[in-house]
Amino acid sequence: MTRKEPADTPLGDEFHLYDTTLRDGAQREGISYSATDKLAVARLLDELGVGFIEGGWPGALPKDTEFFARAAKGELALKHAALVAFGATRKAGAKASEDKQVRALLDSQAPVVTLVAKSDLRHIERALRVDVDEACAMVRDTVSFLVGEGRRVFLDAEHFFDGYAYDPDTSLRVLDAAATAGADVVVLCDTNGGQLPLGLAETVRAVGERTGFRLGIHCQDDTSCAVANSVAAVQAGATHVQCTANGYGERAGNADLFAVTGNLVTKLGMEVLPTGGAAELSRVSHALAEIANIAPDTHQAYVGSSAFAHKAGLHASAIKVDPLLYNHIDPASVGNDMRVLVTEMAGRASLELKGRELGVDLAGQPEALTSAVNKVKRLEAGGWSFEAADASLELLLRREVDGPQNRVLDNPPFELESYRVVLDHRSDGEVVSEATVKVHVAGKRVIATAEGNGPVHALDAALRQALSPYLSWLDTVELADYKVRILPGHPGTDAVTRVLVETTDGSREWTTVGVHGNIVEASWLALCDALVHKSLSVAGA
Amino acid sequence: MTRKEPADTPLGDEFHLYDTTLRDGAQREGISYSATDKLAVARLLDELGVGFIEGGWPGALPKDTEFFARAAKGELALKHAALVAFGATRKAGAKASEDKQVRALLDSQAPVVTLVAKSDLRHIERALRVDVDEACAMVRDTVSFLVGEGRRVFLDAEHFFDGYAYDPDTSLRVLDAAATAGADVVVLCDTNGGQLPLGLAETVRAVGERTGFRLGIHCQDDTSCAVANSVAAVQAGATHVQCTANGYGERAGNADLFAVTGNLVTKLGMEVLPTGGAAELSRVSHALAEIANIAPDTHQAYVGSSAFAHKAGLHASAIKVDPLLYNHIDPASVGNDMRVLVTEMAGRASLELKGRELGVDLAGQPEALTSAVNKVKRLEAGGWSFEAADASLELLLRREVDGPQNRVLDNPPFELESYRVVLDHRSDGEVVSEATVKVHVAGKRVIATAEGNGPVHALDAALRQALSPYLSWLDTVELADYKVRILPGHPGTDAVTRVLVETTDGSREWTTVGVHGNIVEASWLALCDALVHKSLSVAGA
Repeated sequence: MTRKEPADTPLGDEFHLYDTTLRDGAQREGISYSATDKLAVARLLDELGVGFIEGGWPGALPKDTEFFARAAKGELALKHAALVAFGATRKAGAKASEDKQVRALLDSQAPVVTLVAKSDLRHIERALRVDVDEACAMVRDTVSFLVGEGRRVFLDAEHFFDGYAYDPDTSLRVLDAAATAGADVVVLCDTNGGQLPLGLAETVRAVGERTGFRLGIHCQDDTSCAVANSVAAVQAGATHVQCTANGYGERAGNADLFAVTGNLVTKLGMEVLPTGGAAELSRVSHALAEIANIAPDTHQAYVGSSAFAHKAGLHASAIKVDPLLYNHIDPASVGNDMRVLVTEMAGRASLELKGRELGVDLAGQPEALTSAVNKVKRLEAGGWSFEAADASLELLLRREVDGPQNRVLDNPPFELESYRVVLDHRSDGEVVSEATVKVHVAGKRVIATAEGNGPVHALDAALRQALSPYLSWLDTVELADYKVRILPGHPGTDAVTRVLVETTDGSREWTTVGVHGNIVEASWLALCDALVHKSLSVAGA
Repeated sequence: MTRKEPADTPLGDEFHLYDTTLRDGAQREGISYSATDKLAVARLLDELGVGFIEGGWPGALPKDTEFFARAAKGELALKHAALVAFGATRKAGAKASEDKQVRALLDSQAPVVTLVAKSDLRHIERALRVDVDEACAMVRDTVSFLVGEGRRVFLDAEHFFDGYAYDPDTSLRVLDAAATAGADVVVLCDTNGGQLPLGLAETVRAVGERTGFRLGIHCQDDTSCAVANSVAAVQAGATHVQCTANGYGERAGNADLFAVTGNLVTKLGMEVLPTGGAAELSRVSHALAEIANIAPDTHQAYVGSSAFAHKAGLHASAIKVDPLLYNHIDPASVGNDMRVLVTEMAGRASLELKGRELGVDLAGQPEALTSAVNKVKRLEAGGWSFEAADASLELLLRREVDGPQNRVLDNPPFELESYRVVLDHRSDGEVVSEATVKVHVAGKRVIATAEGNGPVHALDAALRQALSPYLSWLDTVELADYKVRILPGHPGTDAVTRVLVETTDGSREWTTVGVHGNIVEASWLALCDALVHKSLSVAGA
């Protein structure tokens, strides 16, 4: 963990693609990353090839402290990125070297530290309640101390644009305190997100000319211009841009890493990612949405599943003539696809590749591959999605191919005869869910009944009761997460429901999917796949 | 329907806020407006105060033809907006006056027509397959003909920015053909959505200087810059901006009407809406999302429920000192609120106002109002939302106040004793849903059982079977729409489900809401409210 600058990127340290999904992105309502989630997010961002990953605020948040500790112990091996700890300057009137919060930044062992400092006179006076001299001293002392300890330091100048408009001298003094004390980049932050691109670009250019400092940009999306503002700032001279995955962040969110990168790479021709990185944008975007448990925005620029989808109409016939006349870029350049219902997976080559990744060799079996491709296409047209459900896809592929490791599928661990779920709204107003399953397991017919606080919970409980005497591994298997999505385009009570179930046995996790008009049946399909998948690994062991 | 320019807007005809939700917005996957939906959308946009409402393409799409016919017959009385028909220029080699598609534009009786024309040489040659002379003649003839028939005409110059970069002369010739034939505005369209604001603003300024024509702008969001591009174009001289509600549109969508308007009003100080209009932005945005049956984007700039929500953290204590230091505008100026869980409705004044709208007078009953406010706050904290469920809100308010018209609530049309829903996955693989209800109606205890293709369908069928012999009006009442939303922030099988039910009796429609951990119970709550609400109007008649 000694690297201090991005590796293997054509632009090297000349340009910083800086990600703050794990700190500022986590401010979005509804996001709550565990330390393990954070490690997974950091690995994906590093695979994509961002230069800097801001991991959190060590010392301030226990999960962030844990994240940095585990990273330092070797759980996070970064190929491209440098890890960044975020924190504040020393307290007013204190010494930086004795400030506990500053000490926690050192203890995190992150090679880079980003300090946030107020750069708007009104915030200095009303929120910080110090004078400008002390505000600047807080910046200067903390930067000097950390630089002296061998850290690379960036300064986030909070509320910079509002502050510069109100009283430019104060804002510039804060930048100057940081830069002269050794900060490598001063980052102009549109903290309240009120800027528009033409004005913002003018300010960035003026500050660059007046100071000569290396400038960064950090934009919030409150005018729906965060991406545009970030790109305009780069055009005006900023060489460090802070983003979050899918624009996650407080209020309207932050500048979306994927749209900003797409624009820098395809519009401005800047090689801000390692070679081949841009083609990973769509995959990484969707994977990060799954970890955040937020439905991917289908209409997101560059990476959304509809970003290159054309509805039949004005252009339908002309598109056949020359598709590139109707797309602003080649969708493949950002790992996306022009069609909608046919996902990345439904092609022969990509399904074969995915099979290899899952340990299912389809290379020598063209008929099995054809059959699998057709099955995936048919299921996806009906609302199934295998992008986030590798375990279900693996079962589907294994059912198509021959091989001894797949024999368990001909002889599954249990077979359902029937289930019944009863939902009672009783006369005393109580609502009760009860499930009965009839299954065949280990040569026996077993009937079990259990209650739950909802129909799916009851069904899961009854199935466990029936199987646990016969399947020794079942006790280690737990439901880790359960997601339900009502699919758009299917209004009315017959709406199709997609259920994703994440299961864990303590050492690994796997995800299965079920789709049905009936939410309970959809859940059942995903629950069964989860157990069958586990039994495969037991049989293989 | 003779008005041709926006009424009652401070800027009058000097600036055009032009909405194309009903035409370009309908290109978004998953949106399918009925003609009745279209009328409802147009009314909301007119209430907001946009200047022009593009209703569709008469002649090309049957629903659009029906929409214009019903609007012309008096079903759409617009206060502010002029209605616009969208269409293409005459076919190559034909006469405009004899072109069926052009004739349909006249027949629509819309006072304004927007014509789309290709303005990129490559599209003219490869898609249209004519030379530039004929392409210009098609524009000139069609504009002249429609102007001669008394229509105001705008021209959408398709693929303008790409075309202008490739061959500026051709693109300018198309603009010239339109303007000299009498088109009032030539609209520069970033059809493929590949532009960035600094470059786009330069082009708009250059075209304005070279031509002197009145310019409009139409942006797609493929670089995530549609809003920024639209605002930059206005700053560069465009005086007509085309948007769609919530940015609905093909691929990544269009420029969001609400963000563009928010920026023009609050950042550039342009009075593009009638006085008081900006405070309606949030309400109209949410109502239009409901009609489109698309979950509102909680993080949408200006109007999202989280747009001014602050998570506890860095700013929490400072926000108390001066909230405006932490918001880019006063949320109330766009009808939004700084808190999240407290919606617009949970304030005393707004609930009193809403009650008046629903015919429930709370003015003289401060205790009833307090109780209602507390109940709404508590329910909304638990996931209820009354914004789109006026009928449920009306019942809630009526239960708080005295008055003879509310007596039916003490003596409701039916009372539930219990229900039971049985979901069977049978041994032959079939999944069957059956519901039994026990209700008290007209002094009798009635038991009824019915099947359905899902649990909610079965429950609805059983309830109708039980009640229809006793409630003569029940046969006219039908389920018009049913929406389910799993609420974020409640992962796991105990997720809270919100159900919205829209009911019709042939002459009016009303919407009710139900929330519960169990999807079936949530649906039941909404179904019951729907019938109780109908019985109120029957009793009052």
